[in-house]
Amino acid sequence: MASPVESRRPELRKDSVTNRWVIFSPARAKRPSDFKSKSPAPSSTDSPQTCPFCIGQEHHCAPEIFRFPPQNPDWKVRVIQNLYPALSRDKDLDSSTSLSSGSLLWGCLLDGYGFHDVIIESPVHSVHLSDLTPEDVAQVLFAYKKRILQLASDDSIKYVQVFKNHGASAGASMTHSHSQMVGLPVIPPSVTTRLDSMKQYFNETGKCSICHVPTKDLLVDESVHFISVVPYAASFPFELWIVPRDHVSHFHELDQEKASDSDLAYSHWFFQIVPHLSGVGGFELGTGCYINPVFPEDAAKVMREVNIS
Amino acid sequence: MASPVESRRPELRKDSVTNRWVIFSPARAKRPSDFKSKSPAPSSTDSPQTCPFCIGQEHHCAPEIFRFPPQNPDWKVRVIQNLYPALSRDKDLDSSTSLSSGSLLWGCLLDGYGFHDVIIESPVHSVHLSDLTPEDVAQVLFAYKKRILQLASDDSIKYVQVFKNHGASAGASMTHSHSQMVGLPVIPPSVTTRLDSMKQYFNETGKCSICHVPTKDLLVDESVHFISVVPYAASFPFELWIVPRDHVSHFHELDQEKASDSDLAYSHWFFQIVPHLSGVGGFELGTGCYINPVFPEDAAKVMREVNIS
Ligand SMILES: Nc1ncnc2c1ncn2[C@@H]1O[C@H](COP(=O)(O)OP(=O)(O)O[C@H]2O[C@H](CO)[C@@H](O)[C@H](O)[C@H]2O)[C@@H](O)[C@H]1O
Ligand SMILES: Nc1ncnc2c1ncn2[C@@H]1O[C@H](COP(=O)(O)OP(=O)(O)O[C@H]2O[C@H](CO)[C@@H](O)[C@H](O)[C@H]2O)[C@@H](O)[C@H]1O
Repeated sequence: MASPVESRRPELRKDSVTNRWVIFSPARAKRPSDFKSKSPAPSSTDSPQTCPFCIGQEHHCAPEIFRFPPQNPDWKVRVIQNLYPALSRDKDLDSSTSLSSGSLLWGCLLDGYGFHDVIIESPVHSVHLSDLTPEDVAQVLFAYKKRILQLASDDSIKYVQVFKNHGASAGASMTHSHSQMVGLPVIPPSVTTRLDSMKQYFNETGKCSICHVPTKDLLVDESVHFISVVPYAASFPFELWIVPRDHVSHFHELDQEKASDSDLAYSHWFFQIVPHLSGVGGFELGTGCYINPVFPEDAAKVMREVNIS
Repeated sequence: MASPVESRRPELRKDSVTNRWVIFSPARAKRPSDFKSKSPAPSSTDSPQTCPFCIGQEHHCAPEIFRFPPQNPDWKVRVIQNLYPALSRDKDLDSSTSLSSGSLLWGCLLDGYGFHDVIIESPVHSVHLSDLTPEDVAQVLFAYKKRILQLASDDSIKYVQVFKNHGASAGASMTHSHSQMVGLPVIPPSVTTRLDSMKQYFNETGKCSICHVPTKDLLVDESVHFISVVPYAASFPFELWIVPRDHVSHFHELDQEKASDSDLAYSHWFFQIVPHLSGVGGFELGTGCYINPVFPEDAAKVMREVNIS
């Protein structure tokens, strides 16, 4: 016999932030191999003895940018260059590509100037972000802020993306707790789409689409300064956004007394947390459209009831 | 000592088809855990004895739509309904959502009407698409065409995506050779972006961006009717496009004597093959921008030299 949730019709939703249709399909949740984490075991070379991110192993890392506390061998957070960077931090002197001029007609080309850093979140191998005290988490966030401000001072850098991969199934190649930051010479497509969509919402309603938080069926938790919600059209099961209550456009304005001049009425920063439960297949690759077997209001209800104390 | 390839600078490229910046970063290829396939072993329940896609097990499948040859118990290809469909093939009578009206203000909502089918490509469990004779592959393609034409006759269906997941790391939950087809009530974002970009290229140059094939550094192979190329800004390592030489907008016009009225000057169908070698991490989720450690011209060179006879 079908339960109420099982008999629910699929829906397509598009939110006013990402402006992307997502298919909500409860029937998909029943597929035989869904919801099994496919995490491979950490590789044998990844042990505290050989981990370059551990305290005492700094000489195995690419150059340090800064550490907290500064100049202290007993550091808590280190920001270092990525040893295998996606972009090059040297300005190009004589640009050359190996593509023939015929092929060049097929698209656009830009030199790969930019920054790719690693933020080591703890000196100790086995300590994850969730094990840190609130004060130590704050140190990590202030390291992001400090480095973003440095990158923002470079006129060639148009956007900075901070991200964290946790666990092999989420793409992480290093288990020691870390996050990454990429300073890009272009504004990436999802960001353009998001900003255009938020601007349109603001023009139509006079409100910021993120300040204008949804009512309680999508709410998971709240504190003095933040709320956590499942987005209206979450692309992934149990996706969660942590949103500052106050209207602040940019993450690097965090903790400033008042909003700076750069503050935009329609833009509002947030953390996006994406548990890696379902994979991406040919449908998502082809269409750019996601199939989520869990309705946002059901995910919010489950997460509201989780006891994390 | 750095080899020529190792010392190459990263580049950003955007092609005139997908209109998406991709970062080409040869340094990334050297990361310790890259390029290892993380495919889990097939689950123990997936054996020929219990596979619903095998000949003789038709009663374990969702209803059949058609088979080739028709009405033949000794079928070669079957098109069936997906038992766990992402969309519902029943028209909605009284639409209702469990979202509160407050939350509804946060986005758009559409009923999940649409089609989700499975194409079983062979009656035999262990036979993959690559094991089939050219004539049997043609049967699969004609099954796509026939089903697309059926779906296209439904006014509510705006786009049909055909896709095939091969292997667990590419998202497949069934090992028996199959592909899928989804008939959507909206035009998905990647398609809109692609069509807009191809239209713009046509308006600027008077040429179809796909007919106007790149010169030989991106070419992998050619036959009388098709060429295979690595796209100018491939999102994934060893991504390959198989492109019909003749200008045909839509796959379902395959093999028609002349282009139909619906033929568009700027649109040209192609197969996109994406080997699942590198995962998607937080950077790609956040930005919509891909990091590809292999330059397209290098991938094309490697693939040109592969001996598949
Ligand atoms: N000694 C050292 N000093 C300095 N840096 C070092 C180092 N040893 C390793 N590193 C760097 O540390 C980083 C660790 O990052 P993650 O584990 O989060 O995933 P990674 O970036 O490998 O790829 C994941 O995230 C990216 C971006 O989302 C996806 O492209 C990819 O597919 C996915 O696997 C790597 O980028 C690596 O280059
Ligand atoms: N007895 C039966 N009769 C009819 N149909 C049956 C059936 N038993 C199973 N099926 C269907 O057969 C299909 C097999 O498809 P695949 O193995 O290509 O991947 P799947 O769709 O599960 O998900 C992958 O592809 C989708 C779309 O890209 C991603 O969303 C997802 O994350 C990824 O794992 C499933 O869709 C399943 O619902």
